[in-house]
Amino acid sequence: MPARQTDDFGHQDRCAIVGIGSTEFSRNSERSVLTLATEASAAALADAGLSPKDVDGIVRCDHDHVTHNDLVCSLGIANLTYQGQVGPGGVGPCAMVGQAVAAILSGQATTVLLYRSLNGRSEVRFGSGTASARDAAVTVGGQGTYDEFFLPFGLMTAGQTFSIMAQRHMIEYGTTCEQLGSIAIACREQANANPAAQMHSKPLDMQTYLASRMISTPLRLYDYCLETDGACAVVVTSTDRASDTRKSPVLIRAVAQGCPPDMRGGMMFPIVMRDSITDLPAYSVASTLYARAGLGPDEIDVAQLYDCFSISILLQLEAYGFCEKGEGGPFAESGAIHRGGALPINTGGGHLSEGYIHGMNHVVEGVRQMRGDSSGQVPHAETCLVTGGPLPTGSAVILRKS
Amino acid sequence: MPARQTDDFGHQDRCAIVGIGSTEFSRNSERSVLTLATEASAAALADAGLSPKDVDGIVRCDHDHVTHNDLVCSLGIANLTYQGQVGPGGVGPCAMVGQAVAAILSGQATTVLLYRSLNGRSEVRFGSGTASARDAAVTVGGQGTYDEFFLPFGLMTAGQTFSIMAQRHMIEYGTTCEQLGSIAIACREQANANPAAQMHSKPLDMQTYLASRMISTPLRLYDYCLETDGACAVVVTSTDRASDTRKSPVLIRAVAQGCPPDMRGGMMFPIVMRDSITDLPAYSVASTLYARAGLGPDEIDVAQLYDCFSISILLQLEAYGFCEKGEGGPFAESGAIHRGGALPINTGGGHLSEGYIHGMNHVVEGVRQMRGDSSGQVPHAETCLVTGGPLPTGSAVILRKS
Repeated sequence: MPARQTDDFGHQDRCAIVGIGSTEFSRNSERSVLTLATEASAAALADAGLSPKDVDGIVRCDHDHVTHNDLVCSLGIANLTYQGQVGPGGVGPCAMVGQAVAAILSGQATTVLLYRSLNGRSEVRFGSGTASARDAAVTVGGQGTYDEFFLPFGLMTAGQTFSIMAQRHMIEYGTTCEQLGSIAIACREQANANPAAQMHSKPLDMQTYLASRMISTPLRLYDYCLETDGACAVVVTSTDRASDTRKSPVLIRAVAQGCPPDMRGGMMFPIVMRDSITDLPAYSVASTLYARAGLGPDEIDVAQLYDCFSISILLQLEAYGFCEKGEGGPFAESGAIHRGGALPINTGGGHLSEGYIHGMNHVVEGVRQMRGDSSGQVPHAETCLVTGGPLPTGSAVILRKS
Repeated sequence: MPARQTDDFGHQDRCAIVGIGSTEFSRNSERSVLTLATEASAAALADAGLSPKDVDGIVRCDHDHVTHNDLVCSLGIANLTYQGQVGPGGVGPCAMVGQAVAAILSGQATTVLLYRSLNGRSEVRFGSGTASARDAAVTVGGQGTYDEFFLPFGLMTAGQTFSIMAQRHMIEYGTTCEQLGSIAIACREQANANPAAQMHSKPLDMQTYLASRMISTPLRLYDYCLETDGACAVVVTSTDRASDTRKSPVLIRAVAQGCPPDMRGGMMFPIVMRDSITDLPAYSVASTLYARAGLGPDEIDVAQLYDCFSISILLQLEAYGFCEKGEGGPFAESGAIHRGGALPINTGGGHLSEGYIHGMNHVVEGVRQMRGDSSGQVPHAETCLVTGGPLPTGSAVILRKS
């Protein structure tokens, strides 16, 4: 290894994902989120050939209801020396991979467990919005969410925010419903090949898509992700330590986050206060990420793009440089993102058709691709882009086959 | 610099604190927590001779109501590439220093801003507990706080939890009220010398202490920290970059966290489910911290010990090895922790007498000590231990004069 300047700190390929685990994805898990997190974590450790005793770091998503110390007790972790969080929500998983890398490379942990566990369908549904008197009350007093400017006028859910972004994209660039539909169908085709996907046995064609219920114009039923019960977990360690784990380590080529200087407010609504509401934080993530990776969009073989809604994928295709700004619709419609296309996306079905584990199932699927055992395996894939929730901060990881 | 093994990642002295800033501490700030956070952050950057444009990382406390992206907007940070959180609550600040070190040493940021801002007196008081129907409701469903086992029986506040710990320490080790009082007085003496401390002009003697209102036996008024409005901020960068900042950098010798394997539950109550309720997570933090620092308790010149309550200091004196288990009371009473003693503590007055910025003012005071400009300056001090909130995870930092 060449000598590095002391202030030339890099992480390229210095850490790896060595274990992945998931529960089933369902509409009603019938067990607690702690149980789900424990199952997924134990599966990830078994996949890595490790035991809970090997874990000394935990990074969790700030929206997770499972605390790090409860998971320590539940799994039997003996000596935790690092714990941290990141979010908000779906921003978490890719940023969590970054924080695990940071903990390891700074000598604060050797083996870090990441998890995301939610009863997102049976218990706490993101899509139901927040407009109770109490929820409105907690937004005053300088707490920075600015929800008091939106909730009283009916802007209450993430779907409504993203529908405004989609409308604007249609106005500015001529994006069509059929183009959004092609994204939903691309994800569904992958789910139809993945027995673990909730929509495994339910094909989707354009006619069905266009006939489906409009929820928040122009977003239809099939543009929305699947509120899901389930958990996923991932184990990160240094590449050196990864040499003796059970399966081939998947290298963490680069991680990045980005936050535009005018993204004020809470998790969902800040975008509508910006000059351009189709201009995601992902733009600043992409430039940082590709620079850190020494790779560009042309060198990405497969992508897992955060899909709370179909429009989120379309905007990220542009932001991560796979097509020009405004060209996301035609690019999606061209077949490029479909099975067998130039850039297959969400190869397990994604949030739209596999399940919504708030971005963590995208990390898991990215690892599968780099191991070569995805149900939507892209032949000869050597690099995978995984992205996190697009607001208010962006986050992403490039994984690489070892 | 000697070559390091790729898996021998360390952080000893590789990062430094180069800026500190605080607002005034009061009972009513009359402004928002975002304003307070912005003021403290701007002061810390000015102290470092840096501008917001130099900041590319933010680590926040999970309990802070100011989001990273709001602070980005408020300060004018142009290109944030790392953000993360840690807590819960008072566990945050020392762990936040660790996360900043991690972000820097993994190449995810070069200059990281940490802040803690709260209207802890005028807006949201920690001491008021949580026992509403709604708060009880959100603890069910496997969310892991276990509060449903405590709230209905009247165990509702941190003060009650720590009073049980104090009672047990009295039963097992003969600890006395006077010994707790000597801790409160040690902090007050420091506050009397610190014009920024809320209790600057209010001396405290043992007679007054013993005559004060009993809140939760054996903890009296003066055993409780001061619920405070205010904010503190800290700037961390690599030691190499720190060479051209305005003031002498303060080296981050080592950071650590620790979590016992049976600390289940939320923030305040898990200790009462353990075999020994005087056995803090700090025990596992201390062993990790001293090993990483290559230092022991004998080599610590001054300490800022997290003091939500006086008993918290007493237990940490034992856990961090300044005296034997059970000897915290006599050690405190000996004068060792007072001004001019062998191990002066909380040299700005601490949470008991300066203000309760949830651990962050301890980090700021630690930096002052290492710069040599504390109002309670310990002559020739070269090392300072700073500790975070003691439950459910422990965290600590050793700072070193450069």
